[in-house]
Formats: sequence, C-alpha cells, structure tokens
Amino acid sequence: MTGKFEALSVETLPKRLGENAALSERIGKDSSRWTVREVGDGNLNLVFIVEGDKGAAVVKQALPYVRLVGDSWPLPLKRSFFEYHALTRQERRAPGSVPAIYHFDEDQALIVMEYLSPHVILRRALIDGRELPNIARDIGLFMARTLFRGSDLSMVTKERKADLALFADNVELCDITENLVFSDPYFDAEMNRHTSPQLDGVVAELRADRDLKVEAQRLKHLFAANAETLLHGDLHSGSIMVTDTETRMIDPEFAFYGPIAFDVGMLLANFWMAFFSQRGHEEKGSRDSMRAYLLNVTAETWAIFRAEFSQLWRTERTGMLYHRSLFEDQGDRLAAEQALDHVLSGIWTDLLGFSGIEVHRRILGLAHNADFETIADENLRARCEAKALRFGRHIAVNRRQIHSIDEVNNLAALIEQESRI
Amino acid sequence: MTGKFEALSVETLPKRLGENAALSERIGKDSSRWTVREVGDGNLNLVFIVEGDKGAAVVKQALPYVRLVGDSWPLPLKRSFFEYHALTRQERRAPGSVPAIYHFDEDQALIVMEYLSPHVILRRALIDGRELPNIARDIGLFMARTLFRGSDLSMVTKERKADLALFADNVELCDITENLVFSDPYFDAEMNRHTSPQLDGVVAELRADRDLKVEAQRLKHLFAANAETLLHGDLHSGSIMVTDTETRMIDPEFAFYGPIAFDVGMLLANFWMAFFSQRGHEEKGSRDSMRAYLLNVTAETWAIFRAEFSQLWRTERTGMLYHRSLFEDQGDRLAAEQALDHVLSGIWTDLLGFSGIEVHRRILGLAHNADFETIADENLRARCEAKALRFGRHIAVNRRQIHSIDEVNNLAALIEQESRI
Repeated sequence: MTGKFEALSVETLPKRLGENAALSERIGKDSSRWTVREVGDGNLNLVFIVEGDKGAAVVKQALPYVRLVGDSWPLPLKRSFFEYHALTRQERRAPGSVPAIYHFDEDQALIVMEYLSPHVILRRALIDGRELPNIARDIGLFMARTLFRGSDLSMVTKERKADLALFADNVELCDITENLVFSDPYFDAEMNRHTSPQLDGVVAELRADRDLKVEAQRLKHLFAANAETLLHGDLHSGSIMVTDTETRMIDPEFAFYGPIAFDVGMLLANFWMAFFSQRGHEEKGSRDSMRAYLLNVTAETWAIFRAEFSQLWRTERTGMLYHRSLFEDQGDRLAAEQALDHVLSGIWTDLLGFSGIEVHRRILGLAHNADFETIADENLRARCEAKALRFGRHIAVNRRQIHSIDEVNNLAALIEQESRI
Repeated sequence: MTGKFEALSVETLPKRLGENAALSERIGKDSSRWTVREVGDGNLNLVFIVEGDKGAAVVKQALPYVRLVGDSWPLPLKRSFFEYHALTRQERRAPGSVPAIYHFDEDQALIVMEYLSPHVILRRALIDGRELPNIARDIGLFMARTLFRGSDLSMVTKERKADLALFADNVELCDITENLVFSDPYFDAEMNRHTSPQLDGVVAELRADRDLKVEAQRLKHLFAANAETLLHGDLHSGSIMVTDTETRMIDPEFAFYGPIAFDVGMLLANFWMAFFSQRGHEEKGSRDSMRAYLLNVTAETWAIFRAEFSQLWRTERTGMLYHRSLFEDQGDRLAAEQALDHVLSGIWTDLLGFSGIEVHRRILGLAHNADFETIADENLRARCEAKALRFGRHIAVNRRQIHSIDEVNNLAALIEQESRI
C-alpha cells in the first residue's frame, strides 16, 4: 500500500493492509479472517483495532483535517511522521514506555503498532476512581528519561540541532497548542465553550485578570522559544494507557523541541483536574480516598521525576551543558549539585505556570476533558470547574513564590474543602 | 565562476570574477585594471578589497578551516550561506545598517558586497580614543529592530520556524561560541591563553569559583536552548564599522536563533572592555574623557534599545506572542505595558550574564581582543585585564540583583579607580 493518501475504513482495511508483512505476521496471514473495529475517540485521527488468528494490532491513521471539527479545519498528514519519530526516540530513551511500532507508512500517514490490552485510558480509570499503584513511578521515570536524554544535557549537540530542525516543521500542531492552550482561553475566541451560565462570572473575572494573562503569555513565549528537549507535547491523562501494573504513553504527535517543564506541568495539571472532578463522580464521601490518592500521585510523580533526573544528571551528563570538565573533573562535585538545583528549580517554577494554564484551557477552551464533561449535573460540574479554575490561576500567577509540591497540594485541598456544599 | 570550491588569491581574483556582472558593473568592466588587496584581519576568512575604474567592492570568501588556527581546525564553507542569509534579513529589518550585497556564490562561499570607506573597525577607533557621536543610537536601533523583528513578537510563526530550521544547521559556528565563550575560559582548555604569570592568581580564583561556573553554564543552557530570535551571533566592536556619522554591522556568520540578550550583552561587554583598556593606551589622565564617553555609550545604547524595542512592541507586535487580542483589544493597554516590562526585565538580567562571560573569554580564552592585546607593557595590560575580569565576574554572578545600567557603570568606575596605580 503506497501512493496517494486514502483514509482507511473498517471495510477496506483488510484488503489494503492484507499484504503488509509486519501486520500479517503479527496477527495472522489470512486477512479475510481479520476483524476490524474503529475506536478513535480522540480529537484528530482514525484508530483501528485489527484482530486475526494470531493476535491483534492497532492501526492509527491521520486524517487531513481535525476529526473533532471536520474538514473545515485542515491539518497536515505529516503529524503521523512526527508521531512515528517521537515514538522511536521515546522507546530508545525510556524503553518499554510506549507501544511497540510494527510499521510506518508516511504516504498513508499510518502507524501499525502494538495493541495494548487490557489497558484503558488513564483518564477513564481516574474518573472511575481506580487507585493505580504504579502510575507516579512509571510516568515520572518516563518524563525524566525522555526529557533529560532528549536535551543538550545528554545528546550530541549536532544531532540535537538536526532533530530540532526536523521537528520545527511540526508547525500546525504546535499552532494548536499555541492558540488553544495559551491564548484562546483568555479572550472570547470563537471555538471556546464553558459551562454556562454557571461559570460566566469567574470566566469574566479571569479574562479581566491582567496578571494572569501576562503570565500566560510569558509561558507561551517560553513554550515557543525555549527549545530545550524533545517533548511528548500532549502528555495528559488521555495520552496514557494503564493496567494495574503497566503504564504506556501514547499519541506523541504534538512532539517538538520545547521546555522540559511543559510535559511535566501538563501532566500534573491533569492529576489536579482529576482531583477537583472527583466530587462530580462520588456518592457522599466515597471519593475521599481517591482524592488523597491523587494528591499523593502528584507529589510522588514529581519526586520520582526529580530523583531520576538527578540520577541521570550524576551519571549520564554527557552533553555539552554543565560539562564535567568544569565541575567533577575539577574535584567540585558540589558545583554540579548546585547547577542541578538551579535547573530543577527552573523546571519547577515553569511547570506550575504550564499546569495552571492547562487547567484553564480544559475548562474554557475548545478541548475539554472527560473528568469534568462526564459530570451530568451542570451545577455540580460548574462547582468542580470553578475550583479548578481558581487553583490554576493561583499557581500560574504565583509560581515564583511557591516552593514545594506540598504547598500546591495543600492549596488544592483547601480550595476543594472551602467550597464544599 | 561555479563548481568546486577554490580559494581566491590576489592574483586569481580578477580572472575568476572578471565575468561577474554584479561586480564588474559596480567597479568597472575591465578586470585587467582591477587592483586587489587582501585585508582579512579576522579569525576565519579571506577578505579582498577590489578596486576598478568605477569604484570598489569587498569580496569575502570563507575557507574550509579556521584561518586563525589553520587547516587542523576544519570549518564548513556553509557559514558563508548563513552570513548571506543573515545579512539579507538584517537589511530588511534594519535598513541601512549592514553592507549592501551585490552577489552571493554558495559553491565558492563568497559574498560580494559594498566597500565601506572611509569606515574603520569600531574597536580600532575606540582604542585610538575616538569619541564617535552616533554609535549608541545606531547600534541600539539595529539591535532592537533585528531582534524584535526576527522573533515571534513580529514574525509569522510558520516562517520563523522554517528559518529556525535553516539556521539550526549552523552547528559548527555555534559550537565555537558554545566552547570558546561558555566553557573553555573556566578550565584549563588547550587553546586558552592569558597574560602570564601576572594573571595566574586571578585566573585560578575564577576557575575555582563555583557560583561563576554554574552561572556560566546556566547561560550556555540559555544560549543553546532559547531560540528566541535571529541573532547576529558575534556582535562585538570588531564586527562594526564606523565613520563619525555612520555605523554598519558586518560579519554575521555566527547567526542563529538564540536569546535576544546575547547580542546585547556581548556588545555592551565590548564597550566595558574598551573602558577598562583605556588605561593601557593613555598618557596620564588623557583618556578620562574617553572613559566617561564609553560609560555613557553603554547607558545610551541600552536606553535606545529599550526605547526602540518598546516602540516596536506598541506598534508592530503582530506575531503570536502577547497578542493584542488579549490586551489592547480588551481595553487593557497597561497589560501590554506590564508584559513589556517583564520581557525587558528578562533581557536585562540575562544580558548582564552574557556580558560578564564575554569579558572573561576575551581575556582567558582563545580569541583575545585588540583593546588589551595592543597594550605592549604586560604588567600594565594585566592590571587592565584583571579589573575587567573582576567586573565580569560580578555582573555575571549578581545579575539578578543589579537593576540599572547606572549601577553597572558605577561598579565599572569603582573597579577602575580603586586599583589605579
């Protein structure tokens, strides 16, 4: 299957991919016995699960437009190319953390990859109140390893710059983030929506909030200019699949070179949103344990990230930045520790900003998340959302004055309790 | 003249470029009457002045190695490509500030450009004690215009990212800066040299200075990762040609996307070094006025930069960052001013760091500058250099606690006076 792009369908897939050795060897050669389901519930792409005699695989295909919106919003097929290249780099830098890739077809913008089963989307698990024991550790390690090893802390500079140039072409997906995350939520942009009229007051307040808007734009500046490492670029709880013991990161089509703090901040924001949404999913008090769990997950994820990043700093700092020749090789290990503290402190300050902004865009922008959306009672949903909005504003604007994850979690708990009804 | 690269010589140039219309139309068609001088006094390239009946032009040709060091240090010819593309962008963004380009030959890595006469290198003029009236204004405007207009404050994002990818390939010249500016001065690197034994003590002190080294590496991190705008990349007083009324920026072959503060910091550092070197060039007290002039030039350059950057911010902020839709269009002009203050404050803090590091590398690294080098008396030279080193260390390490250019200039004057002999 080569040549001009054509979208797959449940009907055409076995015929069109029947000769594909990578797929047929994996799931069985008799494509007439394959069963195909289209399960794409994301905003952008087609996703098929294909099952044959021997096994199953996922076929993910990009469409030349945004699926959520339709062909009025064109989007390049090349995002599949970026996803493929991001997945291969992530697998190398954090082995076992992403689905295995069986085949990539650039013309057809499709990736054949491992079918993860019985994995479910992490966001769904958190809505259901499942307390997964390993996610903090798995995600913390994934972030530390991919973000450290994709930067000038580790890479050969020439290779990093060539890779930077490669991913600089992922313009349209970055543009989505630049607009939908950093700008649209803060003015009356066309595609915005929010729970209305309940949130109208707080939305007006945020859009008139000078400090918040300036901070959001500073963060956009950082996002756009600070090409520090290869990011996943869309690392939220909808981009992670889990079982009780396994965690896999998927869907890195927004990958590009940006600030380390962006992936970490977006991820933690989604845990905090899960926290604020629990009230919408509970029988009286039944989610107390889940709430405690979620705050603990944020603390643990950050602790694991810090610990692993520090470990890599001490053992794998082979890039051109903070080179050993200036520190350890001169007998000054503490200098390397001092530099590490400065780097981690910068990541911390910025991730709070990115976190706050991510919370806002999920409640005020185009792409909402199921944590809140699945709360049918609009008044209840709005109360959850309003708390999250206030929390996001606080950590974004005060990010330079907040020093520990415990402070943030205490704030979250305070906001959650104060407005309990 | 096309095909395989061959270095020009005084003898071969008229023959090889005799048929070049851009050149012959400018200086006269009869190439047998051309006179050619090789005047390259920089570290990297061949530079010819070619004169004919009608006029003169400069032919600058890259060599496949570093001229200063020889063919043991290869360097890509492609730097000529980056220089050409930087010059065309600078001319568009700051008209009249760079030499006019008549012709570019990528294969031969040569640029035919305007012969600036009676211009001299600014560094030479400052060593000679010339108080040029326009440099602060001309350079301040050049920096504000090129750095603002080359960023996401102004450009179409897609175009900026394509340009970022183009210049990301200027790896080897960035590598020179990364090593020679940010790392080598702080350990016993092979190519280093300094006035010895007079400076041995202070050099040992700086190389053992943990705070300084961590700061230098933080700045390297910023330099490498913060792809904010198209930089000149080597904007020192040796890259500027002047008359009493004209100022032109030359030699942008180090151009790449980096932090706004880098160009500004390097430039100001060269004024401060000129200041500290005056004692080496004076009869008793004869350079008092020149010293006052130089400190005034730094203050005025920064003031002009700020004013022009602010003016462009208010009138040309058409890029995706700090968009009017969030500020002015919501009737909140002060929000845009607040964001401007934050951006300028960030540039200020970082430029002090880059300035301090630039001072160090010019005294401790490979590429020294004539301000100090032309002081024949080594003891006198070392005293000038030691003051500059202490100054550089102070502003780099304390950059977050220094708030105005007057404080920096007062510090410079204090250091200069305290150790007068």
